[in-house]
Amino acid sequence: MAKPPDHVPAAGTLGESGEGFQVLDTTLRDGAQRDGISLTVGDKITIARLLDDYGVGYIEGGWPGSNPRDTAFFQQAAKRALLRHSQLVAFGSTRKPCTRAAQDPQVAALLRSEAPVVTLVAKAHDWHVTHALGTSLQENLDMVADTIDHLRSEGRRVFVDCEHFFDGHHANPAYAAAVVGTATEAGAEVVVLCDTNGGTLPRAVLGTVRELLAGTSVRIGIHAQDDSGCAVANTLAAVDAGATHVQCTANGYGERVGNADLFSVVSALELKYDLRVLPAGALSRSTEVSRRIAEAAGISPASHQPYVGSSAFAHKAGLHASAIAVDPQMYQHVEPSRVGNDMRMVVSELAGRSTMDLKCAQLGYDTRRHPGLAQRLAAAVKEREGRGQDYQDADASFELLLRDIILPSPARPFSVEQSHTVERHDVQEGVPVITSAVMIRTPSGGLVTGTAESSDTIESVHQGLREALGQHFGTAVEWIDLKRVTVRFLSDDSLGARVRVHVRAADAGSEWSCTGVGATIAEASRQALTDVYCFALTVRHANAGKPRRVHPRPGA
Amino acid sequence: MAKPPDHVPAAGTLGESGEGFQVLDTTLRDGAQRDGISLTVGDKITIARLLDDYGVGYIEGGWPGSNPRDTAFFQQAAKRALLRHSQLVAFGSTRKPCTRAAQDPQVAALLRSEAPVVTLVAKAHDWHVTHALGTSLQENLDMVADTIDHLRSEGRRVFVDCEHFFDGHHANPAYAAAVVGTATEAGAEVVVLCDTNGGTLPRAVLGTVRELLAGTSVRIGIHAQDDSGCAVANTLAAVDAGATHVQCTANGYGERVGNADLFSVVSALELKYDLRVLPAGALSRSTEVSRRIAEAAGISPASHQPYVGSSAFAHKAGLHASAIAVDPQMYQHVEPSRVGNDMRMVVSELAGRSTMDLKCAQLGYDTRRHPGLAQRLAAAVKEREGRGQDYQDADASFELLLRDIILPSPARPFSVEQSHTVERHDVQEGVPVITSAVMIRTPSGGLVTGTAESSDTIESVHQGLREALGQHFGTAVEWIDLKRVTVRFLSDDSLGARVRVHVRAADAGSEWSCTGVGATIAEASRQALTDVYCFALTVRHANAGKPRRVHPRPGA
Repeated sequence: MAKPPDHVPAAGTLGESGEGFQVLDTTLRDGAQRDGISLTVGDKITIARLLDDYGVGYIEGGWPGSNPRDTAFFQQAAKRALLRHSQLVAFGSTRKPCTRAAQDPQVAALLRSEAPVVTLVAKAHDWHVTHALGTSLQENLDMVADTIDHLRSEGRRVFVDCEHFFDGHHANPAYAAAVVGTATEAGAEVVVLCDTNGGTLPRAVLGTVRELLAGTSVRIGIHAQDDSGCAVANTLAAVDAGATHVQCTANGYGERVGNADLFSVVSALELKYDLRVLPAGALSRSTEVSRRIAEAAGISPASHQPYVGSSAFAHKAGLHASAIAVDPQMYQHVEPSRVGNDMRMVVSELAGRSTMDLKCAQLGYDTRRHPGLAQRLAAAVKEREGRGQDYQDADASFELLLRDIILPSPARPFSVEQSHTVERHDVQEGVPVITSAVMIRTPSGGLVTGTAESSDTIESVHQGLREALGQHFGTAVEWIDLKRVTVRFLSDDSLGARVRVHVRAADAGSEWSCTGVGATIAEASRQALTDVYCFALTVRHANAGKPRRVHPRPGA
Repeated sequence: MAKPPDHVPAAGTLGESGEGFQVLDTTLRDGAQRDGISLTVGDKITIARLLDDYGVGYIEGGWPGSNPRDTAFFQQAAKRALLRHSQLVAFGSTRKPCTRAAQDPQVAALLRSEAPVVTLVAKAHDWHVTHALGTSLQENLDMVADTIDHLRSEGRRVFVDCEHFFDGHHANPAYAAAVVGTATEAGAEVVVLCDTNGGTLPRAVLGTVRELLAGTSVRIGIHAQDDSGCAVANTLAAVDAGATHVQCTANGYGERVGNADLFSVVSALELKYDLRVLPAGALSRSTEVSRRIAEAAGISPASHQPYVGSSAFAHKAGLHASAIAVDPQMYQHVEPSRVGNDMRMVVSELAGRSTMDLKCAQLGYDTRRHPGLAQRLAAAVKEREGRGQDYQDADASFELLLRDIILPSPARPFSVEQSHTVERHDVQEGVPVITSAVMIRTPSGGLVTGTAESSDTIESVHQGLREALGQHFGTAVEWIDLKRVTVRFLSDDSLGARVRVHVRAADAGSEWSCTGVGATIAEASRQALTDVYCFALTVRHANAGKPRRVHPRPGA
């Protein structure tokens, strides 16, 4: 349902400088100010390369001279000729009050960085000039002019970030405009209006940028923080008003709440404004670039991020699924592949028959060959979820349930008959010791017991089960690993709470996820782990060496 | 730096119906569609109570009849008279094509829910009517009119959610307007414009709502999805254009990327639009409500959420630090306490110490009498919280820790020496049976053991401990009850996760809360329960019959 908005800027407002729209990414500078992020020089190089390949026009690499890592990053970037497409940008401040830019060591560090472009932060709010900087309003203007002049005389292109521009413009519009005018006269290529505290709302951004652009011909940029949850909208509002330079960070990383998310902004500009802001084909790598940058920054990818999140095109409600069966476009604003993402059906108690049909098809089962299957499956899922089960992100348990319904019984290679867990805790001596004994029934009807000891309940159940399985199935279970185990209490309000366990498992070839529910962790994990090994010994085994999904599978 | 925006709606646009601005929360319906959320009836009741206390006008509780949990929730809500302030809203659909609303079982379920208000979803996009619903454009209008008419004749207030309104208005403005007109004529109190796919941008919302309001006097609402990252901005744009009803979800939970976040929207409306949309004082509980709803939904609180996230007012050292030293307002858009949040310096222990002073004073201990206490306490709390302990909402455990530090040892009336828990599970025969043996050391140095059996781990530990305590302390422990037990896994990402247990206990006179952390549920609950009884046998005991807090307490 991507449709052109009714407010695409006229083509004439772009490209006046001979270069079209400018995208500046400041993940390596402003993004690094997010609490929880601490980038090494190597991380910075990895991220810079990802952004360069993605094709943003400008990459702000840090503040040379402000800390050893940023200084080292610029040294290495220069030495290695790091960037192939993007221009490297160094961030810094106007010179100190009552000095000369040519003698300011911080300005000298900007030049030493060898970055061809400098973003210079300048105060644009009178109160900050007098109270934070402690200087006169005129001296601040002189600092802007002198610093730009000096950097340009050394051959640098200069972008000026007007800090607290919107609050400043509200408090003293004439002074905020004077800062823009001074920067323009001194030769700044772009004047960037910063909503530094993130408190401005889109209509105010639209009005302010429009007012400003009526009186200047300089290229105007926008830098929006997300404290009001409006950073993307504020960025787009500035573009609506005529701004042609946007500053963003990958995944919205940044100080406090964060910045405008690069991927949301460029996706909107390309898909909804019909602007070309990235090289052809780049947008369809957005999801991958987002995740790889998250990985380099050591932050888990945000599943619910617009456009690129793993849930951005996930559908759960029954109401939607029946419409999606008619046409997937009915419940998505853009085609997911345009940003390199996928549509995903989520199985849940909210789901009806259409979700089941779609889900079965994804797993390679043709439900048309099994009349009534989708209905029985939906009923079985609802019944189990009513008891606390959750098949979201547990496709292997779902597939086993489906096979339980369609295959002639018994569909499972083994069952657990008994499970005993003993926890001994000598309080003065440290952590509890947990011993589990798990007894399974094999296909031939025999009983085999495995026992194991651990300081972790799930691990002791797992090793007990694995030991029993090993006695019967031998090496077939050896190359199975648990990748991630999630535990949740279903009711926080009472004793007698139920426990739900999700397990993600892997072998050499692939990963799969299972779920279990019970009165205790031991019981819930025993169920989930039973599914893990049942899946491995049937579905996985049957598909070994073949493409992951056959359609329709023999026996299905 | 909160400042009034330049586009606050004129006061005259509000309150025309005699009721001011309407806030409808749909966490329990639309929020539950987020993948990863699976709410039990108990979870729904917990969340409804939190929202009711917070003071949103309307709480959409679910879709009665669509799944067993939603049906049960409405039954229980009616039986218990669950809500004190808010109106309960049932969500449902217009009747099926070519039937009568009076004979539609789905519509009957809405009436059976006993909710006084119904939100009716109606298709407003011609393509969806003909292709998803498979009926004629006229029949869809008849469905809207007939269903509203029937519900109103049964005494219900009706809000109409126009699904895909903005896309529909773009494709066929006359038809979208006809749906609004039909709903208005049939007596809908509010017509809610839904950006169902979340692809609309704020300027289009502003223009469309403004255009619509020029031709109707019905109250207009907005329901925005966040697929473009603009849900909050779209909601505010609709308010700018004259909408006086907003639909949101707590923490923005919802289908795909999510919905407009309740806390961001009401904070903007109250602090930036100067509208009163919540009861006096409610806004300052936003952070707490947000976190408690996250906990009930089983979702980790989003640290970078606007206004209420733990990082929303966190400042990392650097450029901002020196300005913040001058005035904290310099780098925050609103005063954090207005939304119940705190400014946080990411590297700072000073905040810790003053918090301790404040906390001790609240408990009746004068820290000035114990030089260095606040510092030692801050260090102890920090060390324990590093291991997963959490003293929020566990004042009794905090007070015991404080007493451990200031009192001549030993401050505790007993200690647990050993704890053994055995879980036996014969899988074919049903639930596990759990036996616990707990050995305590009494003040005289003797050892006493209690044993108990239960189907619940915590209950078996509790009864084992209680039996041991009863042998020594007699009736002193008999009138102590557990009111609420909360269990949380601290790491979802690996085996070896730690477990945190919170216990709220009560006797005839008062309630108190304790916390414990351990490798297993048995260990964590044993710690929390030890604190419950230690507190009862010392602090509670000393205060029996006296006002809850003495200042300063003898011995302190």
